Amino acid sequence: MEFTISHPDEGIREKLVDKINNLTKPKGSLGMLESLALQAGMIQQTLSPVLKNPQNIIFAADHGITEEKVSLSPRAITWQQISNFLHGGAGINFLCRQHGFTLKIVDAGVDYDLPRDKGIIDRKIRKGTRNFLHEDAMTDSEMQLCLKYGAECVTDSHDEGCNVISFGEMGIGNTSASSMWMTYLAGIPLDKCVGAGSGLQGDALKHKYEVLKRACDNYDGPSAPEAIMRRFGGYEMVMAVGAMLRAAELHMIILVDGFIMTNCMLAASKLYPAVLDYAVFGHQGDESGHRLLLEYLDAKPLLNLGLRLGEGSGSVCAYPILDSAIRMINEMDNFAHASIIKYF
Amino acid sequence: MEFTISHPDEGIREKLVDKINNLTKPKGSLGMLESLALQAGMIQQTLSPVLKNPQNIIFAADHGITEEKVSLSPRAITWQQISNFLHGGAGINFLCRQHGFTLKIVDAGVDYDLPRDKGIIDRKIRKGTRNFLHEDAMTDSEMQLCLKYGAECVTDSHDEGCNVISFGEMGIGNTSASSMWMTYLAGIPLDKCVGAGSGLQGDALKHKYEVLKRACDNYDGPSAPEAIMRRFGGYEMVMAVGAMLRAAELHMIILVDGFIMTNCMLAASKLYPAVLDYAVFGHQGDESGHRLLLEYLDAKPLLNLGLRLGEGSGSVCAYPILDSAIRMINEMDNFAHASIIKYF
Repeated sequence: MEFTISHPDEGIREKLVDKINNLTKPKGSLGMLESLALQAGMIQQTLSPVLKNPQNIIFAADHGITEEKVSLSPRAITWQQISNFLHGGAGINFLCRQHGFTLKIVDAGVDYDLPRDKGIIDRKIRKGTRNFLHEDAMTDSEMQLCLKYGAECVTDSHDEGCNVISFGEMGIGNTSASSMWMTYLAGIPLDKCVGAGSGLQGDALKHKYEVLKRACDNYDGPSAPEAIMRRFGGYEMVMAVGAMLRAAELHMIILVDGFIMTNCMLAASKLYPAVLDYAVFGHQGDESGHRLLLEYLDAKPLLNLGLRLGEGSGSVCAYPILDSAIRMINEMDNFAHASIIKYF
Repeated sequence: MEFTISHPDEGIREKLVDKINNLTKPKGSLGMLESLALQAGMIQQTLSPVLKNPQNIIFAADHGITEEKVSLSPRAITWQQISNFLHGGAGINFLCRQHGFTLKIVDAGVDYDLPRDKGIIDRKIRKGTRNFLHEDAMTDSEMQLCLKYGAECVTDSHDEGCNVISFGEMGIGNTSASSMWMTYLAGIPLDKCVGAGSGLQGDALKHKYEVLKRACDNYDGPSAPEAIMRRFGGYEMVMAVGAMLRAAELHMIILVDGFIMTNCMLAASKLYPAVLDYAVFGHQGDESGHRLLLEYLDAKPLLNLGLRLGEGSGSVCAYPILDSAIRMINEMDNFAHASIIKYF
């Protein structure tokens, strides 16, 4: 699937910098709020950026690699958490309520017959990927379908008036898949890419690493991004890649969540480097390797609160910071105007 | 002035930890949101903490030390920024609007005849402190009055139904005063306590350090906290200390802003160590020395966005994170309940 993603036009940058520098504060004293406002203005090509109808889309799927006992949580947690999302009691729910996000759940490949009358968006490719220890997790046509479905979800959001979008995931086993993407796509040694997931320790964590090491040994295919995505990816992860690429194509602000979503942004950037211009990294998660990956991407996350929940929780939690930046550039007075205020 | 500040009763801690651990997420996976919820529950002695009528009080005053040219900004900026606050165009204004904070401005000792019909709270001690290079910045009775006025402001806020309060400051020269408090009260070498303030560089920064070094050399008085506060302090800073102590006495959550307010919390904690139990550190500012001071206090700030504006901007900007923690403990489902949900 093809996307058309270009860097934001540079023509407006100088005017944006001037506007920000003339707000009534010592130059640079609002730190990352200033760089965020600049980025938003560049993406939207305006001196007065706005945030409209924020959405968080959770892509959910199961992973064949869980057959190898790489996760602390049983596979059924994937669909059970979806039930929790629908009942409003999960972590992402209170965050979406707090910040006015519409929450959408996409069944990308959950190993369960989810009900079709609860608002879950049905894009199920298959009941979980294949086990990447032994074979490609998905076929090429499945991967293309994932990219297409992810993109379509974002087109829908855009049609609904959304211009700032966060992506989350639910999928037991997907830190394993993400570690594989990270080691192949960023060239970072595997042992630095593997972490606790939902809570592995000691021997169980060592076992996870050894399984993934064997998966590397067993793979002698090409190292092109598409090949790596197909071999190790989750359906929910490839859908997120398609979603991110479409969001950039539509000049939307992309809020990037934790370890898994950062790996999706990594993959997206290997296909279309300019996608990074649209990315706001919400949170440096607690998963080992996330810091390294953010450094690799030269990303400066807004928060570092030790979250490791996924679901989009880190990116939605960071939203008010982006909102502050937007309010700053639109609502703060400038020196020229303030100086002509008759004081008091 | 005396305060009665005790540590929150430990009796409820175990129940709070149980409640947080049984929310539907991997244990610990909401990181600092979990520790914040615990702290709020301890302060309020409830399993269901709430945030009510948040306020940000800015204490403003001028400093005699500005005679020594230790600041990039001219002294008149203090009162001019107050005008900007009243017109709603300053940094703190959009943040207060965003997060529903009432903003109050207290004239603690501004060197200007501020209008008395604009809602500024008049607690002016004097038109700026004395120059601490040569003498005590304030008298003992002035210091006592500052503590009393600061405490009274918080009593008023509490009477208005506020249970979470942020303090900010406006006072050209107050990073100099803060550096002196820090070196004396935390025992950190002066050169590590002095920073750029509103933007000093090179020789000007060196000059600031040299003035402060001479101020140390010239002082041979006692090292008790009260003596240091009186010698070097700003009226706005001592009022903030009184305000923080009263807020702890009233079991309010105290949001601590940047370098100057962290020094006020340092001073408050030297008088009443238990005040720290009520402190939520909003932001690690960009001012050199702030990180060291936070480490000294064993404080883990919520944000690190490179802000160095003051006014309460860092603490108000961090408020939604605290709000997220409160929503987490009140709104998330627990495993016991989720497991009896008839899935779908």
